[in-house]
Amino acid sequence: MQVGFIGFGEVASTFSIGLLENGVDVYTCLEGRSARTVENARINGVKIYNSYKELAENSEILISSVVPAMAFEVAELVSNHSRGIYVDMNNVSPETVKKTLHIIENGKTVDAAIIGSVLKNGLGVKIIASGPFADEFSELNDYGMNITVVGPENGDASAIKLLRSAYTKGVSALLLETVYHGFKMGIDREVLEYISITEGENFLESANSRMVSAGFHAKRRTQEMEEVVDMLYKYQYPFMSKATLEFFKFMSQNFKKPSERPKNYTEIFKLLY
Amino acid sequence: MQVGFIGFGEVASTFSIGLLENGVDVYTCLEGRSARTVENARINGVKIYNSYKELAENSEILISSVVPAMAFEVAELVSNHSRGIYVDMNNVSPETVKKTLHIIENGKTVDAAIIGSVLKNGLGVKIIASGPFADEFSELNDYGMNITVVGPENGDASAIKLLRSAYTKGVSALLLETVYHGFKMGIDREVLEYISITEGENFLESANSRMVSAGFHAKRRTQEMEEVVDMLYKYQYPFMSKATLEFFKFMSQNFKKPSERPKNYTEIFKLLY
Repeated sequence: MQVGFIGFGEVASTFSIGLLENGVDVYTCLEGRSARTVENARINGVKIYNSYKELAENSEILISSVVPAMAFEVAELVSNHSRGIYVDMNNVSPETVKKTLHIIENGKTVDAAIIGSVLKNGLGVKIIASGPFADEFSELNDYGMNITVVGPENGDASAIKLLRSAYTKGVSALLLETVYHGFKMGIDREVLEYISITEGENFLESANSRMVSAGFHAKRRTQEMEEVVDMLYKYQYPFMSKATLEFFKFMSQNFKKPSERPKNYTEIFKLLY
Repeated sequence: MQVGFIGFGEVASTFSIGLLENGVDVYTCLEGRSARTVENARINGVKIYNSYKELAENSEILISSVVPAMAFEVAELVSNHSRGIYVDMNNVSPETVKKTLHIIENGKTVDAAIIGSVLKNGLGVKIIASGPFADEFSELNDYGMNITVVGPENGDASAIKLLRSAYTKGVSALLLETVYHGFKMGIDREVLEYISITEGENFLESANSRMVSAGFHAKRRTQEMEEVVDMLYKYQYPFMSKATLEFFKFMSQNFKKPSERPKNYTEIFKLLY
């Protein structure tokens, strides 16, 4: 099995190490890439092609894993050279995925979305995939990957990821807003405790970690929610997602981000102006 | 132990049956009450006084459980007659509770809030209580009640309940909005399934029940959220709670409420215009 990567950031380097261990030939190309990407690719056994054309011609499965803004551009580089299956694994909207995969000439395309943390789960992180060649892509499960096919259409996997993200980020905003009001009244611990009655035993721990993470990364959450809101507008006015976006925008503007991630949500609240 | 009830709706009648079984003397007064209230009070053993003055003079603990709009008015009826402890158990804002309890002349007051369903849990339903006489009120735990004292100030128990409500109703709105978009794209089941990865094992069941209940009662949720938003404005702009209110307002205006509560959230979505 020959797997190529366009882009060689955290995802590609983590997957490469795992795939190499499972006997897969791993390829990439470093033409025009950043110093950091080149550094990432110095993994024993990754074969480096000099051009994207060669990379695309020699990969049975070619995975695009770049910064979201580059997703379409890199697909253009290989659109008429990709011999095998082209997988867009970028964190982009269903619209962008469809537009991107549409230009791959042989039509062997897959929309793939990572659910969860690559850092924590490595090669075994959950991936959902849709599109005409999703089943074939999922054969990489024989080599240690954890791919679930969710449908035949490009765009479905990305839409599921984006809607999941709308929910989880909305819950974080709701927690921060509700508990912050409790904090101002001096009853934040009690509020959390009485919410936990209906929310299950891990609620207190997960609520704290959600508030810390969402508060600390409020600016990134703002950018992510902009994409969610863009997508949802097409169907029905997204009251909750729009509020989530506005909440994180407000938070990132009124929050002195500390250099290190705090351990407790109260530290986040103390840093709000 | 002598416990009096002002108002005799579902809460008072359920608690009365339980308290009588535990050897408590239960009193009420039906002066000026509705036919339904009078009907509720026909429980063997409940002693009915002819005036609120007499009721207040003879109760060691006097519990006010009326419609929210009446909370202050009924306190006025007994403000200088209440001999024992006066408990406001109405679903009102912390501001209203404070204003109401302030007029009880002997100052023996308690702010109490029911967390959960009286219908399901009977006398054992969780009650949180704050205020100067909350500890004394919690002695009713010896007679089958389930009271937790959360603080010394009137208003705290109501604020905890209201913030808890802001969170749980916000989650319901977030679920309805997110899953509705998935429904429109034909991927609602997948969206729920992939959210459940991080939300625990009961997520699918609780999400369905939350969506059905919140959709079916969208109008009531709108009214409840108006009170939440009113309270939160005093502290910081409530992005998420305001969106929750607007979401339920939109939903109650664009939803043909069925005569019976549906079993599945998809039935709710089909009834949206």
